[in-house]
Amino acid sequence: MTDCPQTRLTQQMQFIVEIDRLKGILRQTLLTDCSRRENSAEHSWHIALMAVLLMEYAPEPIDVLRVIKMLLVHDLVEIDAGDTFCYDVQHNQSKVERELQAADRLFGLLPADQAQELRSLWDEFEAQQTPEAQFAASLDRLQPMLNNYHTQGGTWKQHHITRDRVLLRAAPIATGVPHLWEFVQALINDSTAKGFLKKPET
Amino acid sequence: MTDCPQTRLTQQMQFIVEIDRLKGILRQTLLTDCSRRENSAEHSWHIALMAVLLMEYAPEPIDVLRVIKMLLVHDLVEIDAGDTFCYDVQHNQSKVERELQAADRLFGLLPADQAQELRSLWDEFEAQQTPEAQFAASLDRLQPMLNNYHTQGGTWKQHHITRDRVLLRAAPIATGVPHLWEFVQALINDSTAKGFLKKPET
Repeated sequence: MTDCPQTRLTQQMQFIVEIDRLKGILRQTLLTDCSRRENSAEHSWHIALMAVLLMEYAPEPIDVLRVIKMLLVHDLVEIDAGDTFCYDVQHNQSKVERELQAADRLFGLLPADQAQELRSLWDEFEAQQTPEAQFAASLDRLQPMLNNYHTQGGTWKQHHITRDRVLLRAAPIATGVPHLWEFVQALINDSTAKGFLKKPET
Repeated sequence: MTDCPQTRLTQQMQFIVEIDRLKGILRQTLLTDCSRRENSAEHSWHIALMAVLLMEYAPEPIDVLRVIKMLLVHDLVEIDAGDTFCYDVQHNQSKVERELQAADRLFGLLPADQAQELRSLWDEFEAQQTPEAQFAASLDRLQPMLNNYHTQGGTWKQHHITRDRVLLRAAPIATGVPHLWEFVQALINDSTAKGFLKKPET
């Protein structure tokens, strides 16, 4: 810590105020009471707490603090880049570039050491190479499935999403948290049986 | 873990779905863009990330993972008990009883070991005896002050809150994170000078 303590605190507080904007970034997912769409800040809270509750299912010992930090910051880039609906093929093509720019600007608000720490957590999440990143991403995929299931299909129904696309989207859970894969498959099967999910077009 | 694995996972998932309701609990605080009131889930996300960024100011070494867990669960009881505005004297009289009942029901949804872990985190936060609980509570007090400041008085102005009441409310920061007390005092002074906060009635 070589910078002036006052400047350091000012930078930290500016960042803390700036990230309030994540509360205004809407995802496609509905709340379970169907009252409105979920925002990325409350979604991040939900999956961070899921990490605490479900860490026993990680396939190898993981650093749960790193998982939680990763989940707390994983969506921050959406403040500039917006939320990209996972089934929107066209919009996903420009996603990487938009999010990289956002990461440069946002993490760059922090003192250098913290900018680097948070940026490497975000990079780690994006790269999906470590057990922590794979565990974190699995929760990020699982939570909207739970909300879709408990809103009788929610976003899936609204956008006519087919079962095969959801299976593909959920697939990282099979390697990230194999112990939960049976649960996920059952949820998808039941959603198909109940008509929450369309069968693939033949 | 002696219970049936299937039952255990079912209990965990039921809890995870149940806590989605925290996203519907509105606090008095406004978002910095003044678009709406903040909810307790996104507030919990915000202060959990603040813990990561501000832990260097803790007066003694703290277990930051326990602080974050505490912050992620500290408002869950509001799902049943509602949010109690800190300056509402009458409503605060029944707060303890309402929140204890909520804690029994909500944490009771989990498998026994996790119910106990989360309940003791919540008890620890409420008791305010450990450095972790005092650090966590300081962030819980600081974040709405930042939002009030950046919304030109926000809730303070709306409810005609006086400077002395805010100083009293912020006081635990002086012991929980003494290094931030100067910043807090400057924020309160500036808020008074700018008319965001009323001077005490004489």
